Amino acid sequence: MNLDALYSKLLVKTDAKLALIVLDGLGDIATKSTNYLTPLEAAKTPNLDALSKNSAQGRMIPVAPGITPGSGPGHLGLFGYDPLEFQVGRGVIEALGLGLELKAGDVAARANFCTLDAKGIVTDRRAGRIETNVCEELCDVLSKKIKKIGDAEVIIKAGKGHRFVVIFRGKGLEGPLTDADPNREGALIPVVKPTNTKSAKQKKAAKLIAEFYKAALPLIAKRKPANGFLLRGIAHQPAIPTIEERYGLRAACLAVYPMYKGLAQLVGMKKIEGPQTIAEQFERYAAEFDNYDYFFIHYKYTDMHGEDGNFEAKKKAIEELDAALPILLKKKPDVLAITGDHSTPCVVKGHSWHPQPVLLHSDFSGADKLERFTETGANSGSLGVFEAKFLMRLMQANAKMFDKFGA
Amino acid sequence: MNLDALYSKLLVKTDAKLALIVLDGLGDIATKSTNYLTPLEAAKTPNLDALSKNSAQGRMIPVAPGITPGSGPGHLGLFGYDPLEFQVGRGVIEALGLGLELKAGDVAARANFCTLDAKGIVTDRRAGRIETNVCEELCDVLSKKIKKIGDAEVIIKAGKGHRFVVIFRGKGLEGPLTDADPNREGALIPVVKPTNTKSAKQKKAAKLIAEFYKAALPLIAKRKPANGFLLRGIAHQPAIPTIEERYGLRAACLAVYPMYKGLAQLVGMKKIEGPQTIAEQFERYAAEFDNYDYFFIHYKYTDMHGEDGNFEAKKKAIEELDAALPILLKKKPDVLAITGDHSTPCVVKGHSWHPQPVLLHSDFSGADKLERFTETGANSGSLGVFEAKFLMRLMQANAKMFDKFGA
Repeated sequence: MNLDALYSKLLVKTDAKLALIVLDGLGDIATKSTNYLTPLEAAKTPNLDALSKNSAQGRMIPVAPGITPGSGPGHLGLFGYDPLEFQVGRGVIEALGLGLELKAGDVAARANFCTLDAKGIVTDRRAGRIETNVCEELCDVLSKKIKKIGDAEVIIKAGKGHRFVVIFRGKGLEGPLTDADPNREGALIPVVKPTNTKSAKQKKAAKLIAEFYKAALPLIAKRKPANGFLLRGIAHQPAIPTIEERYGLRAACLAVYPMYKGLAQLVGMKKIEGPQTIAEQFERYAAEFDNYDYFFIHYKYTDMHGEDGNFEAKKKAIEELDAALPILLKKKPDVLAITGDHSTPCVVKGHSWHPQPVLLHSDFSGADKLERFTETGANSGSLGVFEAKFLMRLMQANAKMFDKFGA
Repeated sequence: MNLDALYSKLLVKTDAKLALIVLDGLGDIATKSTNYLTPLEAAKTPNLDALSKNSAQGRMIPVAPGITPGSGPGHLGLFGYDPLEFQVGRGVIEALGLGLELKAGDVAARANFCTLDAKGIVTDRRAGRIETNVCEELCDVLSKKIKKIGDAEVIIKAGKGHRFVVIFRGKGLEGPLTDADPNREGALIPVVKPTNTKSAKQKKAAKLIAEFYKAALPLIAKRKPANGFLLRGIAHQPAIPTIEERYGLRAACLAVYPMYKGLAQLVGMKKIEGPQTIAEQFERYAAEFDNYDYFFIHYKYTDMHGEDGNFEAKKKAIEELDAALPILLKKKPDVLAITGDHSTPCVVKGHSWHPQPVLLHSDFSGADKLERFTETGANSGSLGVFEAKFLMRLMQANAKMFDKFGA
């Protein structure tokens, strides 16, 4: 039996309020160089400590053992969507990261400006890493001249350096397509092809991109060094059932960075704009408490400092969140989960596969007799080690959102 | 989505060296009679203790909860193959145990000499447990007269006591077939049948075995007490993708006993011959370090003493391995896993279903703050309790052999 179908069948409506605090990349590993402590273990976290006395803990496998997730699969899992079932292409993630609002069926591509020789051969895949302002100017040139290709709207947005994003919004389009990128210098830009030759929608999208190239390349042909561009990760935004459809919860997102707002929007969350600090996010949560049933509160800095390998900064970022926590706890949700979307260990300086610790607090979570919220403590918590996609189900259970299964 | 396909898709080539040390049947259980210690807990293991300070621990379910594995599924799991997907018949395992080199498609059967009465009824399934030398002589008689049946080569090899193995090597053969064994005295030897009546290959194999009986039985009809034989576990060697094909690793096996060399060969490992003690195995590992990327080092004695219920001897076997460990650690692999293929608790005197402890060491394994490597400690390790088939995936992750999943 399909488990999602079972959960849906058992779903009952309640007035419960659920909140998920994501410390991005929270999980870490203890090593000799860090005196056998993780940033979470080294941090002073009086508020988390107090909470953990009345909470359950465990560790979550983001996707599958040994798999390191990107932000997309990491968050989809936390929202209760199997990241292997609901896959979001790189072009879509890149567009979300630039704050573009996608609609189901939009085809998005990551793009690079590049340098081509007289024969159209790629001589520099990054056009000498042009400055962001040059990229913006080039995107402007393209945007002004190309608003539509056939019946599809074209949206172009500059990113950092040589990077930009192109979106095709039209009827009957679908990805994924092969790359318009030789992935090395010294070759022509390959023609984009459907990955499924039976898909008429992919064929239409591939044709559209060929026409886009025909229209766009002449517009920048005289520029130096960026006189061409490459498209990669060409994918459409999948139609994902919303949080409200799946769980009957009105959901809101309190995030600062575009990527996470975009991921929240993918599953139908309302974006609450404005707050810039975690304290402001928690204040706003309290202010909006009655308007939503589920709050996703995203905190980026743990991941950012983990990527830099900066143990002290990651530790301080945790302490900063802890210090703000009482603001949220004044209007305590019925179910509160605090975790990461994955681990970003300082020694790895990047995302990793290590299970992230999770703390779950409700009147029915039970207490694991743990004095603190830490990776080591979480190892012996009552939640055990489980796949992140089940966190939402545990939150629902703690919110009494499920009928009994069987008699 | 098929997980194996995902792992393959994310695979990247590295120069990492991986080593797996298998203390066969390592896992045990603490009971009152053993002063609530397991052999691993009672053993003095200074080198494992030192290692565990910088390692992750956990426990592995060999196949599924409550399932006791044989050596075949136990090891296939450790090598990263789902033991439920890759099943190896008993005949094949028995042949491997006798050191026979099988080829994909070979059909192998476990065989017993037995006693038949004048009507062909089995009166003793083990022919009064004849001595090994008698068995060898009878196998000799059969081997000399029967080299081929139809177009298939026949290979016969004596085992211990009344046991032997028959291999049929020909084109278009397949198992499994039903047994040529009534499994009780007082009945005729049943005719072998295909288990899948639609398989032409099984039909061919069944016909071949009927002809083998017709040719072989008269050759020993006058012998006493062994004037007949039974065939069981008739199966073909499945085509299993090799470790190199699955993981891109050049793999070598350092084992003393034929069974484990055979299992390693099933997945395409090179057998390194010669070493007889664990110290010699580790020396050879160091000598061959540059020639392979993955080393499987097998140690039999923990299982052997567990089967005998000899707690002291099992404990000493662990201490002996621990004492030799520095030889390996001088040429430390990038990723080292130390575990068993299953538990063989002394009080069970046989294989069991209890999850075996595992220790995983790499620059990215993290440290679980455990002073020793023990069953009890492993219970609170960061790896949690997981299916053994994922150990290889964790080893690969620690070797940085996987790209990120999604953006």
